[in-house]
Amino acid sequence: MTLGKLIGVSLGPGDPGLMTRKAWDALSRPAHWTYPVAKSDAGSYALDIVVRAGITPPLDAVPLLFPMTHHPEVLAKSWARASSTVLERLRSGQDVIFLVEGDASTYSTFGHLARTVRELDPQVEVEVIPGVSSYCAAAARVGTPLAEADDTLAVIPAGYGVAVIDHMLDEFDSLVLLKVKPLLDEVIALLERRGLIGHACFIEKVGTPDERVVRDVARLKGETVAYLSLLLVHNPNRPRGEIRRGCRKKKTAAAN
Amino acid sequence: MTLGKLIGVSLGPGDPGLMTRKAWDALSRPAHWTYPVAKSDAGSYALDIVVRAGITPPLDAVPLLFPMTHHPEVLAKSWARASSTVLERLRSGQDVIFLVEGDASTYSTFGHLARTVRELDPQVEVEVIPGVSSYCAAAARVGTPLAEADDTLAVIPAGYGVAVIDHMLDEFDSLVLLKVKPLLDEVIALLERRGLIGHACFIEKVGTPDERVVRDVARLKGETVAYLSLLLVHNPNRPRGEIRRGCRKKKTAAAN
Repeated sequence: MTLGKLIGVSLGPGDPGLMTRKAWDALSRPAHWTYPVAKSDAGSYALDIVVRAGITPPLDAVPLLFPMTHHPEVLAKSWARASSTVLERLRSGQDVIFLVEGDASTYSTFGHLARTVRELDPQVEVEVIPGVSSYCAAAARVGTPLAEADDTLAVIPAGYGVAVIDHMLDEFDSLVLLKVKPLLDEVIALLERRGLIGHACFIEKVGTPDERVVRDVARLKGETVAYLSLLLVHNPNRPRGEIRRGCRKKKTAAAN
Repeated sequence: MTLGKLIGVSLGPGDPGLMTRKAWDALSRPAHWTYPVAKSDAGSYALDIVVRAGITPPLDAVPLLFPMTHHPEVLAKSWARASSTVLERLRSGQDVIFLVEGDASTYSTFGHLARTVRELDPQVEVEVIPGVSSYCAAAARVGTPLAEADDTLAVIPAGYGVAVIDHMLDEFDSLVLLKVKPLLDEVIALLERRGLIGHACFIEKVGTPDERVVRDVARLKGETVAYLSLLLVHNPNRPRGEIRRGCRKKKTAAAN
């Protein structure tokens, strides 16, 4: 029996132009298509990128249901269903591609899908086609570098709370706050208190027709924003320690 | 007088297949090409990606010299020369593209080039085409997610030293250490001391013909590695705080 390969195809965050040539090629070859949905009757963010690229998905493309819940039994059941659906198709000998918005290694379900499929059959070969992450596209969109030269960069789900974010602002030149929705007001208050509100930018659904860029972040107070939204924050005042540079001789550096 | 636009074209970290369709289109349109070199007689990592993609650079493509030095006068002189070269061509009315390996917002010289050109002429319009970053491609290459679900991710130049890295390992699930060359041995010793050496992976020049992946990082001790190399480190034991989830009601979460 020949097993197909499971391929995570990163599509970039929303603009079909940000698909890589490798992703495009993967979509042009014969393969079973799968893509994530949060509800059985809901659309797919990932599939939508492909459609906007002008590609017609194959008629037998299969949505895999990953409900937005933290209920362990519901989750276990949907993962079991998804992985057996994928394995069944791999066992037909054809490759299975899983469409991923953004980058498949960055806050994606693909890693977990690959693990669960390989738990069922360790022979399954997995390939990941990397993509443009949402925060790289957001930085490009607003024209502000994420990190330069000796900068440090942290990417965290905002849900860890303002105390953690406050602390991170002391240690990083650049902060990407993901999933800001549930505590946007608190984060805005923190940035105002620290005098950093002018160094923050809000981006929602970057590269899609629903994209929204808000540079005056304070005016978002009290607003309900989309799930796929993020904040880019710079701290130009971060106290920096010594840095050892690549071009220095090792011995000299060690003597410091 | 019509001014051309300055476009930072991200090419991804090395595999020409990881160029986006938008980058490819930008290279297919009429424009002046510029690209960075570290020495006047040296090759260009960025241009090399384009050549390996099968694209022939225009004969008048201009290398911009950014020497690998921290000498302020030498740097100021080369930046002044680069920005006036770019501005001269923009003033001819044609767009100028600057080729960037990886992502133009992530540890790239493009941000500084754009600033210096706009200091000379604030009318210059700048566009950034984002790309796949080296660490996203590295994670895909080794098949290990960078970040999942509630993970936190930090990207730092390793030059900040082992004390900083040691501290970051307490606060992040995933650490990307860039420019590890000058202190690789010390980082390896730290990872061994913390029992994390088995959760680290070394990747050099990802996606190029010179790519090297080393999963048994300890065996790199004493070796001189390339400048374009990085370490991906996971800390599966990070103590985690509470996280507020997007699906919870705001009021309930605030009461916690």
